[in-house]
Amino acid sequence: MNAYEIILRKREGEELTVEELEYMVLGFVDGRVLDYQMSAFLMATFFNGATDAETEALTRIMLGSGELLDMSGVHGPKVDKHSTGGVGDKLSLIVAPVVAAVGVRVPMLSGRGLGHTGGTLDKLESIPGMRTDFKPAKFAQLVADVGMAIVGQSPQLAPADRKMYALRDVTATVECVPLIVGSILSKKLASGLDALVLDVKVGRGAFMGDIEQARRLASALVRTAGRLGLPATALLTDMASPLGRMVGNALEVRESIEVLKGDGPSDVRETSLVLAGRMILMAGLAAGAEEAGALATAALDEGRALEVFSRFISAQGGDAGVIENPDALPRAGAVAEVTASGDGFVTGVDALTVGLAATGLGAGRRTVDEVVDPAVGVEIVAPIGTAVGRGEVVALVHARGTDEAQSVLERVGSAFDYGSDEPAVGGRLLEVFE
Amino acid sequence: MNAYEIILRKREGEELTVEELEYMVLGFVDGRVLDYQMSAFLMATFFNGATDAETEALTRIMLGSGELLDMSGVHGPKVDKHSTGGVGDKLSLIVAPVVAAVGVRVPMLSGRGLGHTGGTLDKLESIPGMRTDFKPAKFAQLVADVGMAIVGQSPQLAPADRKMYALRDVTATVECVPLIVGSILSKKLASGLDALVLDVKVGRGAFMGDIEQARRLASALVRTAGRLGLPATALLTDMASPLGRMVGNALEVRESIEVLKGDGPSDVRETSLVLAGRMILMAGLAAGAEEAGALATAALDEGRALEVFSRFISAQGGDAGVIENPDALPRAGAVAEVTASGDGFVTGVDALTVGLAATGLGAGRRTVDEVVDPAVGVEIVAPIGTAVGRGEVVALVHARGTDEAQSVLERVGSAFDYGSDEPAVGGRLLEVFE
Repeated sequence: MNAYEIILRKREGEELTVEELEYMVLGFVDGRVLDYQMSAFLMATFFNGATDAETEALTRIMLGSGELLDMSGVHGPKVDKHSTGGVGDKLSLIVAPVVAAVGVRVPMLSGRGLGHTGGTLDKLESIPGMRTDFKPAKFAQLVADVGMAIVGQSPQLAPADRKMYALRDVTATVECVPLIVGSILSKKLASGLDALVLDVKVGRGAFMGDIEQARRLASALVRTAGRLGLPATALLTDMASPLGRMVGNALEVRESIEVLKGDGPSDVRETSLVLAGRMILMAGLAAGAEEAGALATAALDEGRALEVFSRFISAQGGDAGVIENPDALPRAGAVAEVTASGDGFVTGVDALTVGLAATGLGAGRRTVDEVVDPAVGVEIVAPIGTAVGRGEVVALVHARGTDEAQSVLERVGSAFDYGSDEPAVGGRLLEVFE
Repeated sequence: MNAYEIILRKREGEELTVEELEYMVLGFVDGRVLDYQMSAFLMATFFNGATDAETEALTRIMLGSGELLDMSGVHGPKVDKHSTGGVGDKLSLIVAPVVAAVGVRVPMLSGRGLGHTGGTLDKLESIPGMRTDFKPAKFAQLVADVGMAIVGQSPQLAPADRKMYALRDVTATVECVPLIVGSILSKKLASGLDALVLDVKVGRGAFMGDIEQARRLASALVRTAGRLGLPATALLTDMASPLGRMVGNALEVRESIEVLKGDGPSDVRETSLVLAGRMILMAGLAAGAEEAGALATAALDEGRALEVFSRFISAQGGDAGVIENPDALPRAGAVAEVTASGDGFVTGVDALTVGLAATGLGAGRRTVDEVVDPAVGVEIVAPIGTAVGRGEVVALVHARGTDEAQSVLERVGSAFDYGSDEPAVGGRLLEVFE
């Protein structure tokens, strides 16, 4: 067996054996398979895909390349939620405390933002003092004590994924269903879950712009998780426009607190409750979808989710005072207004354009080495369906300084589409794969 | 512009600009583009191919990455012949002296064998004293003096091709039409030709097993050469069974001498004359195909080609005495007989099986570092169409020792197919692209 023959077989569309996939993945980790061979293999996989058996084997091998978290000290059903990433996607900050308040245990391993989508860790770290770098034993302890914890992936979990992802990121081989499935599930399986809810974003602001591609991913995630013994549900949700009104780290924490207080944009609230209901149902804490939804809504409306969020912040070293006083969160030096270039109704707000503008301001990273600015971002003042006149304010740009704010005004303005007919504003949930 | 974006565009099937191809190819040569990015790019090119404009640009960039040979001191039409490689393909040794005898100047840059197909340099170097490592000025001098010279590619010619080929060879990205076209033509264009005849082999013993693939290659070679101002003709020739009867370096020199003396297998003679006729025609030394063919045949039959061959060997330091006394060529220590496993007519001799057996004996290289044995190889005693009885000798294995000979007897035997009906033996020439 050698790397050349395995690349050739993948290139020719043949199904690889478990041993061949092991040779490639573990060989890449230990240096027997060279990075230029792995990148050719990844590109061949991009084109030829992988069978369910190959995807299962790939995931299992990546999982087996590292350690497993010991969650035996955490009692109760452990369910996590994973999003494929979107613009303004702060749902983890709301969903986790909601379900924890109902009794679900949420050991959430999360990532940092790269490109135009934000990362949950970056958002959390905008809270003064907040830490996300706990070791596995402390992570389990936090989940047991608070009901939830959100920490960064430790290098000991699925190191093959870490190394492969770094290579995919520089060789244009990220957008490949079996590789995404392996990457997501290997990490989730390492954290000892009982069930998993996947939020597969689709649309211009998402990783998967095309609904067919998103369907393939959602379906492959659910099928592969099932083959590996992890019950999973995937929800396809709309990411054509930014989720909620805030895009940027501290801005999104502020909006999450609003939603946990019972306010905030309806799309964030509704989507959070849909995801929370699914997690409660999969945790076995409700007899049906209706009961699960009611439990989630009650936890949110009765302020119990907000209490969990407060304890969660304190337990991870953060200043929970930001809940009462959101102005204690980092604030941008300059705020500039984006005005409407047309009359009528806002018919679209392009998530990708807004996400790239926010990244340009420093809210996200273009390379892994960049440092994010917690304070900056974009605030949508006139979401889809708002009636506006030319020159009215449709968005606010939060930037380090006036010059930086001015530099993205035009770009943010270009994200808005206007029309004379009031658009129908649909829900975010598109389809369910289970 | 960056490598990631270029790989992504190629992956998505978009047409790259000249500047983007320059960035990739020259960046790879100077280290700005990393090998793992180039290999992902090569694999994406394997799947998505390249447009004619891209293939032309790629070839031009590879050509421009190195020096050009100064052939201004060589008077007369300069025409080369290039084969994509086959089993028993010794045609260069016959065709070059035939056309040189008619007045064509042949500056032939050649390669070494890798895999199951032999290399012309390896064959030549089985002649005692023969050298192929001349510098450009001496190469031009040899062509001017003798009418032909066959030397190895200098590292100064198309270095981008050299570096890309080394990577393709270990990442399963060799069999890709635009990459093959760029590789072949960049080197040929560097040697100042007036015209080029391409021998595209097709069948089990060739690089291109499939006729559709071979047609695409032949057509792309001719089109791209034309765009670059080099008149070219490609002949598709059959490589299902070994060409001639000898496979192995000294064995093939011996067979070439036989053909130059007017004997030898008819397929070698006929195919050589077809290629030579094309070269003479493209050199402008004949008014039509018939006259060109007659000139080639006369040069061969009147012994003038043999005279050129003798001068060529002497000029490159070799012992031209091998022409009178072929036993002065290296001879194998052991010769073993392969006997027929069936009765009737030989209906097929699988070129790939014979080529791999010869390589296993040491006639070819499995890796670039292996040293070839000039003496070993396989001699076909009963070519297609021969009537044989079970147990009769159908081939001879020339090996270092008896054990090595015995080790491949079964394999060589398995190359032969038998049937009760006498097979039609067609010519080797299948199609012409011009």
